[in-house]
Amino acid sequence: MDRNVIGVLDSGVGGLTVVKEIMRQLPKETVYYFGDTLRCPYGPRTKEEVRQFTFEIIDYLLQYPLKAIVIACNTATAAALVEVQKHIKLPVLGVIEPGSRAAIKASKRGEIGVIGTVGTIHSKAYEHALKRLNPDLTVHSLACPTLVPLVESGQRNTSLADQIVEQALRPLEQKQYDSLILGCTHYPLLTSSFKKVLPTHVELISSAEETAVELSTILQYQALLSERKSFHRFFTTGDPRSFQAIAQDWLGQIVRVEHVKLSSDLVHFPSKEVRLP
Amino acid sequence: MDRNVIGVLDSGVGGLTVVKEIMRQLPKETVYYFGDTLRCPYGPRTKEEVRQFTFEIIDYLLQYPLKAIVIACNTATAAALVEVQKHIKLPVLGVIEPGSRAAIKASKRGEIGVIGTVGTIHSKAYEHALKRLNPDLTVHSLACPTLVPLVESGQRNTSLADQIVEQALRPLEQKQYDSLILGCTHYPLLTSSFKKVLPTHVELISSAEETAVELSTILQYQALLSERKSFHRFFTTGDPRSFQAIAQDWLGQIVRVEHVKLSSDLVHFPSKEVRLP
Repeated sequence: MDRNVIGVLDSGVGGLTVVKEIMRQLPKETVYYFGDTLRCPYGPRTKEEVRQFTFEIIDYLLQYPLKAIVIACNTATAAALVEVQKHIKLPVLGVIEPGSRAAIKASKRGEIGVIGTVGTIHSKAYEHALKRLNPDLTVHSLACPTLVPLVESGQRNTSLADQIVEQALRPLEQKQYDSLILGCTHYPLLTSSFKKVLPTHVELISSAEETAVELSTILQYQALLSERKSFHRFFTTGDPRSFQAIAQDWLGQIVRVEHVKLSSDLVHFPSKEVRLP
Repeated sequence: MDRNVIGVLDSGVGGLTVVKEIMRQLPKETVYYFGDTLRCPYGPRTKEEVRQFTFEIIDYLLQYPLKAIVIACNTATAAALVEVQKHIKLPVLGVIEPGSRAAIKASKRGEIGVIGTVGTIHSKAYEHALKRLNPDLTVHSLACPTLVPLVESGQRNTSLADQIVEQALRPLEQKQYDSLILGCTHYPLLTSSFKKVLPTHVELISSAEETAVELSTILQYQALLSERKSFHRFFTTGDPRSFQAIAQDWLGQIVRVEHVKLSSDLVHFPSKEVRLP
């Protein structure tokens, strides 16, 4: 069987912004998406718990012919990427390094802003990723706990949204930075509000866009690019109907959503390792 | 001996725009640059000749502890990248795929402009790279033979430069495109003229910037990032003094340039293959 599927996982629906970019930039690839909506959000959970959930989802996805895995969730990337890469013999990408790289490219002055959930910002994962590449960068980080609820409440593109975004970003007002990493996969959905609120010289870095570029790079260098798309599949641990409504709205296409019950007790991870043929 | 050097090669000085971006985005990396100024330009030469020159330069650079190679020349990338990748057991990057990927990311409408030398445009290398990722893209290609001489004559940032750029781009005037690939490593040096001449909605894609991002990605995924910079070195087959003057102007730092005489007759390529430890 041809290994030709990109497995993409997230705590819920946020990672669909990454899927949308993969579909746009790599239209010949096939995506199997797993949204752990039942246990969403991951932000307030312990690192150990997030790591276990991530491994459970990957274990589930490994029943399919994956050729690469994208952890499309900043919290899970911060908590589990390195360990997953150690256990899984497939290319595994997170969303933090691609955004960091793009911000370094975009920033002319070496001053970079990062916004994310409390979990992501407290982990300092972006700061580490940025400074690992260039220790002389200045990084201004800000947790924005109101923004994910704003997106999930379906109120983006309203004047209330602009107001909440303005309030959330206020602590960055006096900081000097010329690129801002949207360090949460939900945030690209608030782009129009960000553009209204931020000075025009600030370049917005969407980890969704950049992760798709990085996936394209890795697949190409490993000679894993697909020649023919197959059907995408979507799995959720939560309510498939509401997941489907959001997915169709964001992706602009009809999707079928399958419900999955993960039974943590039955999973002994790592239960298998796969090796590329 | 630690393999920790990035070998970068070009037909002359153009690839220094890539070096500048590598130094900016990856300040902990060490670059050995080879400019084949004596035999520059490669544009009008046959593919076979360009391929041979490229292999000769790589053979020369392989005496140093390389961990990756960047072919920082569009003509040489189009002529030789695939074959070099087959022969050399190190990561080898060209400048065409990174620019193509960035244009795909930037283009909202899927209509992409590409400018380059006659050789690069006639090779259709960008068109192939773009359409391999997305067959539905529309690509508008234009050879701009006046722009390299303009840069090399040292007249960038003048009103004459604006005029020559305006004239060179005129055939694209009626075309619809929202991202323009600067498909020649010299062109980023004309950015201020491009910005004056082009509509503001057109995003300029510098293959120099994007190649440095891609190098960062590949080094990171192969666990080859450096922890400590050593001294950069610059080699030229031409006049070291004029090479030094241009390099110091572009890179904004003092560089020492070493003269190299390549003796084609003595080189039997591929004379060696290296394998990462």
